[in-house]
Amino acid sequence: MRVDLALVHYPVSNRNREIIGSAVTNLDLHDIARAGRTFNIDQYYVVTPFADQQQLVREILDHWQTGYGAGYNEHRKEALSIVSICDDVATLYEEVTAKWQQRPTILATSAANADISIGYDSVRTRIFSGEPFLILLGTGWGLAPEILAGVDGFLPPLKGFGDYNHLSVRSAASIIMDRLLGDQ
Amino acid sequence: MRVDLALVHYPVSNRNREIIGSAVTNLDLHDIARAGRTFNIDQYYVVTPFADQQQLVREILDHWQTGYGAGYNEHRKEALSIVSICDDVATLYEEVTAKWQQRPTILATSAANADISIGYDSVRTRIFSGEPFLILLGTGWGLAPEILAGVDGFLPPLKGFGDYNHLSVRSAASIIMDRLLGDQ
Repeated sequence: MRVDLALVHYPVSNRNREIIGSAVTNLDLHDIARAGRTFNIDQYYVVTPFADQQQLVREILDHWQTGYGAGYNEHRKEALSIVSICDDVATLYEEVTAKWQQRPTILATSAANADISIGYDSVRTRIFSGEPFLILLGTGWGLAPEILAGVDGFLPPLKGFGDYNHLSVRSAASIIMDRLLGDQ
Repeated sequence: MRVDLALVHYPVSNRNREIIGSAVTNLDLHDIARAGRTFNIDQYYVVTPFADQQQLVREILDHWQTGYGAGYNEHRKEALSIVSICDDVATLYEEVTAKWQQRPTILATSAANADISIGYDSVRTRIFSGEPFLILLGTGWGLAPEILAGVDGFLPPLKGFGDYNHLSVRSAASIIMDRLLGDQ
């Protein structure tokens, strides 16, 4: 599918609404890559400008792609093959635009921007008709305002029939991909 | 909702189809509790017979319920309030039967038992009509055959339009709850 997902580690908000860079975590890599491969996204971009964090991602990928892990678990090797590292969101936008030879529709999730939200069913229909999309997810307390200001629209918040919606980014990524790309 | 979810750590299969007990992980507790609270399940049962593992769960819960974490993150406190510890599946069945004053329909997920599978839409309709359900998820390489033999039916495997379906248990739990209980 012409769908990419990016997990942004900078710039994101912390609990006090300050702009920070968050650390890459091993399980974000694995869980989201496995879901991404299951739901046939094209690439899973890990966005961080920090050299030590990029190196950590490379070491994890090497372990599972060519090191001990590659022989231990082929499924994991296959899942992690969709992971790419990217310095920042501007570079990411350039890369996906070059790949699809057109700028994809860039969507984030947000509870606070319901006025320009696009329903999951509508996006799903457009994906299956061949349109390219890029889904942005933020770590920490969410994408920084400057990133949110630059996207084309927002997917509605994920929730049940209550007012609690504090999913992990791993859960949110999985559910979004299932809603957009699952064999429901 | 009259829906419970249980994460079973024993008996489960390992990669060689041997029966093992798996270790409780911190992130399975957090991610699935947050999704469970978001989608309004009643309780999230962590099933393990091992005293040291039960103690680890209690320490994590105490930290977030009454310790430092309770003041640091109220949302997390609320999510973890749905977690219960249970020794084994037999005890679990007794507890949920007592709670709902009837035995709930017990479902697992399995790719290998499509002959007695029940669709997500059908289960969702029955949940919203008030029927109690218990969803079992296995850690490791999945629930042991003796557990699978005792359930009432199977939810279809979660997948996209490909043949890869190796989701983490955290992703699977999140997607299942969204399909059954999300505000789609």
